[in-house]
Amino acid sequence: MRKFVAQRTKSLLKNTSTTSSLLFNHYSHQSSSLNSRYYNNINNNNYTSRFARFFTSINDTTSMASDKSTPPVTVESLNPKVLKCEYAVRGEIVSLAQKLQQDLLANPGSQPFEEILYCNIGNPQSLGQQPITFFREVLALCDHPTILDKSETQGLFSADSIERAWQILDQIPGRATGAYSHSQGVKGLRDSIAAGIEARDGFPADPNDIFLTDGASPAVHMMMQLLIRSESDGIFCPIPQYPLYSASIALHGGTLVPYYLNEETGWGLEISELKKQLETARQKGITVRALVVINPGNPTGQVLAEDNQGDIVEFCKKEGLVLLADEVYQENIYVPEKQFHSFKKVARSMGYGDKDIPLVSFQSVSKGYYGECGKRGGYMEVTGFTPEVREQIYKVASVNLCSNISGQILASLVMSPPKVGDESYESYFAEKDGILQSLARRAKTLEDALNNLEGVTCNKAEGAMYLFPHIRLPNKAIQAAEAAKKAPDAFYASRLLNATGIVVVPGSGFGQVPGTWHFRCTILPQEEKIPAIVTRLTEFHQKFMDEFRD
Amino acid sequence: MRKFVAQRTKSLLKNTSTTSSLLFNHYSHQSSSLNSRYYNNINNNNYTSRFARFFTSINDTTSMASDKSTPPVTVESLNPKVLKCEYAVRGEIVSLAQKLQQDLLANPGSQPFEEILYCNIGNPQSLGQQPITFFREVLALCDHPTILDKSETQGLFSADSIERAWQILDQIPGRATGAYSHSQGVKGLRDSIAAGIEARDGFPADPNDIFLTDGASPAVHMMMQLLIRSESDGIFCPIPQYPLYSASIALHGGTLVPYYLNEETGWGLEISELKKQLETARQKGITVRALVVINPGNPTGQVLAEDNQGDIVEFCKKEGLVLLADEVYQENIYVPEKQFHSFKKVARSMGYGDKDIPLVSFQSVSKGYYGECGKRGGYMEVTGFTPEVREQIYKVASVNLCSNISGQILASLVMSPPKVGDESYESYFAEKDGILQSLARRAKTLEDALNNLEGVTCNKAEGAMYLFPHIRLPNKAIQAAEAAKKAPDAFYASRLLNATGIVVVPGSGFGQVPGTWHFRCTILPQEEKIPAIVTRLTEFHQKFMDEFRD
Repeated sequence: MRKFVAQRTKSLLKNTSTTSSLLFNHYSHQSSSLNSRYYNNINNNNYTSRFARFFTSINDTTSMASDKSTPPVTVESLNPKVLKCEYAVRGEIVSLAQKLQQDLLANPGSQPFEEILYCNIGNPQSLGQQPITFFREVLALCDHPTILDKSETQGLFSADSIERAWQILDQIPGRATGAYSHSQGVKGLRDSIAAGIEARDGFPADPNDIFLTDGASPAVHMMMQLLIRSESDGIFCPIPQYPLYSASIALHGGTLVPYYLNEETGWGLEISELKKQLETARQKGITVRALVVINPGNPTGQVLAEDNQGDIVEFCKKEGLVLLADEVYQENIYVPEKQFHSFKKVARSMGYGDKDIPLVSFQSVSKGYYGECGKRGGYMEVTGFTPEVREQIYKVASVNLCSNISGQILASLVMSPPKVGDESYESYFAEKDGILQSLARRAKTLEDALNNLEGVTCNKAEGAMYLFPHIRLPNKAIQAAEAAKKAPDAFYASRLLNATGIVVVPGSGFGQVPGTWHFRCTILPQEEKIPAIVTRLTEFHQKFMDEFRD
Repeated sequence: MRKFVAQRTKSLLKNTSTTSSLLFNHYSHQSSSLNSRYYNNINNNNYTSRFARFFTSINDTTSMASDKSTPPVTVESLNPKVLKCEYAVRGEIVSLAQKLQQDLLANPGSQPFEEILYCNIGNPQSLGQQPITFFREVLALCDHPTILDKSETQGLFSADSIERAWQILDQIPGRATGAYSHSQGVKGLRDSIAAGIEARDGFPADPNDIFLTDGASPAVHMMMQLLIRSESDGIFCPIPQYPLYSASIALHGGTLVPYYLNEETGWGLEISELKKQLETARQKGITVRALVVINPGNPTGQVLAEDNQGDIVEFCKKEGLVLLADEVYQENIYVPEKQFHSFKKVARSMGYGDKDIPLVSFQSVSKGYYGECGKRGGYMEVTGFTPEVREQIYKVASVNLCSNISGQILASLVMSPPKVGDESYESYFAEKDGILQSLARRAKTLEDALNNLEGVTCNKAEGAMYLFPHIRLPNKAIQAAEAAKKAPDAFYASRLLNATGIVVVPGSGFGQVPGTWHFRCTILPQEEKIPAIVTRLTEFHQKFMDEFRD
């Protein structure tokens, strides 16, 4: 069925004719019974424009008028941008994993493994990571503030979580955690976040620049919605990239302009490559509007050096590009020789102020050491736009009213965690450090194991939550994949899943140099499971190579 | 500044030339240093299509290639769909209110009122409504499950909230409330919701038809994104309508096709009007794809009669329209002669099964008696689409990973509240009944007060949270509004705000029969404040009429 749909989709995309764009589509309407009733541009509060009647009769451009009913909704009649969008992280391989999991539940022992290990997605708590206690204490108290005054509460919650909950409630008008907030998020929580950014960067941050969102994804969509006017607008993205970007660009009808990271230099981001690709894009008539940088990298795990970041800032400044900085893995750094520097800090260090460069930094509560994916909290810090453009960003945010308040609270907490001297500090630090140290060990163990496999090389995971090994597949395996109508890396990943229960995402979901094959594997399974994973992976790979070796 | 921007926006919208739509916009890219590197349709896991290279050179259609940098981001260079979108509920009048509130804080006594009363938005807890205790107990326990086993917890939480929290945690894989869930939401929570729908309707509901979302707004956006291909696609909306619909249609580039509710018959939805407007739209070349019905009505407050709903179902069935049923006010009914019937129940009662009519029902935790706007929970029940179309809906949901888990839990709770015999039942029922009875009294008091004003008539608020009075303004007031470059209803609303601190939304934000003027006012201020509001409103209106009476 899936294949059938894909083919029908493809044929639709080939055959759909282009339609011209009419900017004013509120058509005038006439009514025989009520002549004074006409369609009055209802979206506009402005008196002048409301009376100006910008009606474009679509009669002029089409002749589709018909008495027949609208045909039923089919895949062919859906928005082609939706059909084009793909998101491999929850794609075909995950459907297969869910099927296998159901089989395992129904018939234990029916598979050569006991459980499915979801290494496809950065979802730490789904694999057993425990939440940070202090954060959850505060969230629970803000959810049910009537217990704050009760004596039993002192026995259940730390003193500083109770104090913090009071502080947060006092920042929320009417202490109403059940009310819609300001469309950018509760002002007091934005104050805390701005203070956290200042402490991190050593440069001022303005709470009015913060837009709290339900995770980073809606923030990315919002920026794409604002910047993309048509397929002639391009967004520069790294290849490999996190497929939210390709999906969002497809949904908003723009063009993804690729720049390749250099695997040989540890997924280096080279300015010469940016220049070359920008020139190519411009020659093709693309207006490149923004540059996406993911630092630390997803799926590639590299951490950019500060001078490299400076070059990227210069490049964006010179070329007039909005710098979209995906910095959601800013807390996930595993090597002592690397440090996270925000692009805003780098730009400010170079002397560029708010007026010099449009820069959006995305942050999320889903990543870091906290990994609170289910809370859907995050923010974007929006700098370097004119007040008029900012007003439009605010308007789009206001259509969705606000992001969820628990997510807002958590976003403020991760940017202002307990400090030395607070009752929770020691246990908080132990939890945080334990998770980060363990992640570093897991990354190293898996990286070494992958590098020991025949034909596999794997760059170091300096940060983020993933490894992205390069697998050199024998020609026989590539032919077998072709016969199975799968990409070679998808063929490898589905064989791996069927043999071991380990779910990884084929590199083709992220983009890769054509003719090379990779997969993305998270470093998130609990540490005690890592040795067994290494064994299963090694055994599988050896058998796979034995089967297909040229 | 605002006006200046509005004018520039308008001029931009007038001048922007149409661009032809290219469906394949991943252009091929060449690289001198790495000839084998070319842009490899990264969004597609399908082997065949990944190798088919659907590259359309944009060179053929544009000649914009340039060596110069991209011009800076200005309002003129933003997506024109964004510029066109408006959302009056958080528009100009609210900006003025926020300014006045700051003035009041800085200089108490500087205004002729002591506080701003936000009657612009259905946000009950912002005006002092307290959350339902049972729901908040369960949410707090799910946020911090480690206290579930502690003895102090028994003293702080009801026994059934503890039991319910355990049940919910057991439904969540790994009890991980901090993990991303299935993209449609946690399966066990969808089971509870489906059971709640079955209990409400007396017809089966399938948990696989439920998509949990961050409130109803993202669900509405998702359906618009799927259905709207271009401005030739129309979405039927009531006038007056909730401006989320006009905003979402504008953002997705479709055409709002209006049908007018009949104010004279209590905002009646007449099939003859639907037929007439559909014919007009089709004559203009619009493919009308879906019909939005808001029941109970927003901003109009009417509750549809069951036989009227049956006629609407027949109409959609005959005309091939997707029925988008905004049923977020299903719990808010204030008159004994009216009852809520879901459109799915009505369709099933008529003998129409899942295959007969595509129908989407939107529900939210923000409304009802619970009014948990800040939790951003909600769902859509999607029926009557083919599996292939459903797969596309799932794909779009999966790009955003999942909705927030607290919102998901709350959505399941409002559809399965405490039952007779549960420890919390009595207090739960008392809280619920107290809120609904009070809302009914407030609606009646405000309705009567409005009907007592010179030149004002106001239909009954049978349901929802709003009154939408018709104000007949003297010619002098209309001229004064024109001189102030405001719509007459916006002029009235800003005068009202400046004199009383009461924030209402001008009718022009929702749409109204041209030449008529209205405003939307929520019934949500706390009951003890209603008499003072009535007095202030009555005094203001009399003075306003004295000033402008012809």
